[in-house]
Amino acid sequence: MGVRGVSKRILVGRKLRSSQLGETLLPKRIALPVFASDALSSVAYAPDEVFIMLSLAGASAYVWSWKIAIAVALVMAAVIASYRQTVHAYPSGGGDYEVATVNLGQTAGTTVASALLVDYVLTVAVSISSAAQYASSAIPAVHDHEVLFASMAVLALMAVNLRGIRESGTVFAVPTYVFMAAILGMCAFGFLRLLAGDLPQVESADLVITPEEGMDGALTTMGLLFLLARAFSSGCAALTGVEAISNGVPAFKRPKSRNAATTLLLLGLIAITMMVSVIVLAKQMGLRYVDPHDLDRLSRDGVALSEETYRQDAVIAQIARAVFSDFSPAFYLVVTVTGVILVLAANTAFNGFPVLGSILAKDGLAPRALGSRGDRLAYSNGIVFLALMAIVLIVAFDAEPTRLIQLYIVGVFVSFNLSQLGMIRHWTRLLATESDPAERRRMLRSRVINTIGLSFTAVVLVIVLITKFLAGAWITLLAMGFFFLVMRGIKGHYDKVALELAANDEDNVLPTRVHAIVLVSKLHKPTLRALAFAKASRPNILEGVYVSAEPAETNALLEAWDERNLGVPLKVLHSPYRELVRPIVQYASEIRRANPRGVVAVYIPEYVVGRWWEQLLHNQTALRLKGRLLFTPGVMVTSVPYQLRSSEIGRERAEREISRVRPGDLRRGQVQREDADPSQYR
Amino acid sequence: MGVRGVSKRILVGRKLRSSQLGETLLPKRIALPVFASDALSSVAYAPDEVFIMLSLAGASAYVWSWKIAIAVALVMAAVIASYRQTVHAYPSGGGDYEVATVNLGQTAGTTVASALLVDYVLTVAVSISSAAQYASSAIPAVHDHEVLFASMAVLALMAVNLRGIRESGTVFAVPTYVFMAAILGMCAFGFLRLLAGDLPQVESADLVITPEEGMDGALTTMGLLFLLARAFSSGCAALTGVEAISNGVPAFKRPKSRNAATTLLLLGLIAITMMVSVIVLAKQMGLRYVDPHDLDRLSRDGVALSEETYRQDAVIAQIARAVFSDFSPAFYLVVTVTGVILVLAANTAFNGFPVLGSILAKDGLAPRALGSRGDRLAYSNGIVFLALMAIVLIVAFDAEPTRLIQLYIVGVFVSFNLSQLGMIRHWTRLLATESDPAERRRMLRSRVINTIGLSFTAVVLVIVLITKFLAGAWITLLAMGFFFLVMRGIKGHYDKVALELAANDEDNVLPTRVHAIVLVSKLHKPTLRALAFAKASRPNILEGVYVSAEPAETNALLEAWDERNLGVPLKVLHSPYRELVRPIVQYASEIRRANPRGVVAVYIPEYVVGRWWEQLLHNQTALRLKGRLLFTPGVMVTSVPYQLRSSEIGRERAEREISRVRPGDLRRGQVQREDADPSQYR
Repeated sequence: MGVRGVSKRILVGRKLRSSQLGETLLPKRIALPVFASDALSSVAYAPDEVFIMLSLAGASAYVWSWKIAIAVALVMAAVIASYRQTVHAYPSGGGDYEVATVNLGQTAGTTVASALLVDYVLTVAVSISSAAQYASSAIPAVHDHEVLFASMAVLALMAVNLRGIRESGTVFAVPTYVFMAAILGMCAFGFLRLLAGDLPQVESADLVITPEEGMDGALTTMGLLFLLARAFSSGCAALTGVEAISNGVPAFKRPKSRNAATTLLLLGLIAITMMVSVIVLAKQMGLRYVDPHDLDRLSRDGVALSEETYRQDAVIAQIARAVFSDFSPAFYLVVTVTGVILVLAANTAFNGFPVLGSILAKDGLAPRALGSRGDRLAYSNGIVFLALMAIVLIVAFDAEPTRLIQLYIVGVFVSFNLSQLGMIRHWTRLLATESDPAERRRMLRSRVINTIGLSFTAVVLVIVLITKFLAGAWITLLAMGFFFLVMRGIKGHYDKVALELAANDEDNVLPTRVHAIVLVSKLHKPTLRALAFAKASRPNILEGVYVSAEPAETNALLEAWDERNLGVPLKVLHSPYRELVRPIVQYASEIRRANPRGVVAVYIPEYVVGRWWEQLLHNQTALRLKGRLLFTPGVMVTSVPYQLRSSEIGRERAEREISRVRPGDLRRGQVQREDADPSQYR
Repeated sequence: MGVRGVSKRILVGRKLRSSQLGETLLPKRIALPVFASDALSSVAYAPDEVFIMLSLAGASAYVWSWKIAIAVALVMAAVIASYRQTVHAYPSGGGDYEVATVNLGQTAGTTVASALLVDYVLTVAVSISSAAQYASSAIPAVHDHEVLFASMAVLALMAVNLRGIRESGTVFAVPTYVFMAAILGMCAFGFLRLLAGDLPQVESADLVITPEEGMDGALTTMGLLFLLARAFSSGCAALTGVEAISNGVPAFKRPKSRNAATTLLLLGLIAITMMVSVIVLAKQMGLRYVDPHDLDRLSRDGVALSEETYRQDAVIAQIARAVFSDFSPAFYLVVTVTGVILVLAANTAFNGFPVLGSILAKDGLAPRALGSRGDRLAYSNGIVFLALMAIVLIVAFDAEPTRLIQLYIVGVFVSFNLSQLGMIRHWTRLLATESDPAERRRMLRSRVINTIGLSFTAVVLVIVLITKFLAGAWITLLAMGFFFLVMRGIKGHYDKVALELAANDEDNVLPTRVHAIVLVSKLHKPTLRALAFAKASRPNILEGVYVSAEPAETNALLEAWDERNLGVPLKVLHSPYRELVRPIVQYASEIRRANPRGVVAVYIPEYVVGRWWEQLLHNQTALRLKGRLLFTPGVMVTSVPYQLRSSEIGRERAEREISRVRPGDLRRGQVQREDADPSQYR
């Protein structure tokens, strides 16, 4: 290969790289895995919760399991249908928050936002805790160290997201499709064996469940209803995450809304199939499953079990072990891929959190810095906050999904409800002005769908509140209240500031004169440059200002100054105790007092270095001075930078920083432009 | 009392307060306690070390104890006499560092500086560990929790010094004088009882010390010499802290040097008296004292003791308990005041550390920020660093003074030696030009004193190095080497930068034209003010620049802009993904490229808020932009502040910050001016 060949290959290589970067809009087959991990991963814990709740009345109550599965599936269908309306009506990615804000007002919007914030934390906590449970099924070493394992996993996710990983379609696609194949394949194989009549029993099938006290014997109707309500509301954990697509419409390939709606439908079908199959299969295979805290309600041959004598594996793990008989690779595949999908689901929160933050920032509900792309500090703070809160929950609830789920569902259904209500309002508003009969029919149908959705989700919310309030939902509501108040406070502050800043006609007045002072510490290049720049802006008065601590140094400087013949007077301020900020602020204030309609321009020479430790060694005083001068009215502060050779390193780092990937970029559909050559615009 | 009376009292009260603030130069009676705590407090652990070392050969070796005390006293007398020369010759407070730098060059100075840095850390660690030992004698609850107690004490000292406590003469005077009275009184009382023939025995008098293996039986001459050398070098711990006065000359009342020399003499006399008395008395009272790790070398009635059966109290505690027979208030007074003086000694390091930092900063060996008074962050970092290093040592060495002292003495004697050598050079240099015979005699005498001092301290340094290198002194030398290299690196960096910044004749060139751009985000007061200020500086070109993310907002702004009739064009930069920094940097670079000899003036409107959380909500993007623009050549960045009402809070906080007391102020003799009225120069 000649030189031409080499150079061509390099060029092609570059081009490819740059074109890959540009192509971030997602086709459905990629969008599905990107947005589905959160929703699909709930099959890893939702069926378990149904069985745990029913077990309170003993294994006989398991006859209700498939009916509850059907009820949850119905709710999910209604919710999916509703969100299909949303992605058409609000394709900008604002999701529930936008729907609630636009149709129900700021308060509803803020409520949804606080529910979402809490949900992101819980998504991380629940998914990772569940992943730890699966890990402990597969890896004996993890057993009894789930809290540590889960906390480390959250920290690892945090690190990865702080570093700025590019969410790539393939990273999601492979494990998500493998997960679907594994779970659906396992269920299909199970049903085949059921038809063939050789479906084996799960490991817990020979256990006996002692009902909870008061639940033994025949239940009253009320008792039964309450039990089924609790099981149903726990099963609704399967619905968490279905809203993700409505926040990700901008990332879809055109036609965005239609593709998103189709993907949503697919997601719903797969999720329902998985959940119903797992529950039915588990029932058929004789599963016995109780709250991990009540292991002693399980007994084998009349002997109560305990943590020492029995390890209760998750439902999917039990099914996998039994269905594939003793073919352990299949068992490990199912368990591993379930764990991976749970980690991806947690990662979803790390990506959704900053997106929500930037939407809230645009509306003044979160610090503005979150709104402009590339404020690394603000993003990082958000990610660290999310991770730490999740770890707090994991530690507080011992990494037990069962206990964390009590907190989870209420937030999800608060936003479902407000969003459905908002959509009904939306259609009603549109119907008021629409006259085209075909359009009206479509809108009416949509409104019916959303009304059905609302009635379903409202019932679930009431059930969840009743059955879960004391079990932990109060914590969620408290946290939501806290976020609500913080956002209200931020919004109030921004509104107040906007009012104070609103311009009126007096604000066009020009200052009468500019008195410029150039801070002089030594007579070196940066000072000379600052003097030259200050001269170029032709102030009415220009002088150098030197803060003198030692007479010898001062005399040397004065001599050098005169020698240079700069044509600018040098004012010396005395400061025997090496204070710098106070004399300058005082002098600037005096100038301003003498001429209140003028402006004082303070020029500060700064040398720019590149390495972080060099930055510690320079300009600290300049920084403090600038900070202090900003509080002085009638003063403007000009930094005149002088770039040292090492500043190149810093410039390049800043450049990399700006073009770095941030969590959430993918689902915002942000096309990365690879700028031609950063050196072009130094 | 009428209203007049009240108002007068308030005025007088105020006046008093302000005059107290002015009067920080110290009379001898106050200077002694301020600077003495470090040196005097060594009597709390130095005698213990002598007995521990001698005990290796059994209690019979204690016959050497008073001879070792005399030897240590001789060295101390020589060192004190030497430092009396130093305070006359170098009254600026630079102490050993200045002497070494001026007379022996930068390398020697940097070596002394690194020794001092290490010593400050060790002063804290040793003093607080010893204080914990005394606390455990008096308070049973502290026993076995010395590490925790000591660490908490260091953290408390850190907090107090971060907060900025005013070192006041009285705070030192009362406990220091009580300490002197208590120790000297105890010894005098003991000697009286000795004369009266009823000196009681200490609690350990009936114990038998088993000599260390190989040390039993008659010692060889070499063995004995080595044993005595070890005991002597441990006893030299009594010398730590005597150099403090030489760093504090500026704080003394005039005539500063003479007062400092007199105070030094007093300090020496008291320290020697205390140390010799304690050792002699302890020997007379039958003390048995071994390394706390070797408690099993003590036995009572043939039974070896252990940590469970015997608590070995510090020497002074044992003497106090016995001398005052069973009068426990006197015992508690001695032990308490010893503990307090040890804490004051540790606090000395917190005050000396920043003073040394500012001296090093002036010479370019430490970050410049340490050199100007009032850089709180730099000071705080230093204090936190000191505290954390001390805690690391306390934890690593189990808060045992005996083990920490092995690290302590080497650094002290390195600086003693270099300082004495420097003083000899100093006198030799002066003698070369001096012709007045009286002066020459004085100088010759001084040189003799310093030569004696050097010969003593050199011998001690060699003994310390031989006897303590493996016991821990290597850690000190390693740390000194580390500090040395860091300071060299900083100095090298500053020198390199100075070279790069040195002005030449080209640097007077004026930019040909100024192209000013005013960043516009909204059309509010801050923007209008920035436009007005920018106009007032009459640039060749002036334009507003707006980064547009959404067409609707952009159109609204353009309309408002036209309506206002500002006479300034508005340039719109498109940034669909809400990036802000990159488009502006790019635009500024383009302007500059088009006119390489011109300058781009970027005006950034900033609104100034007061509360910390408000600051989080504003200007974060402006900050990032400013940081990035500094890397762009030919650009100057002007912040045009607009002070919101709440900024008043921030201004006042900044004001308080500037006038706050900092550790080390007292010993620098910094007179605090209470400025008439800060509101005068807003």
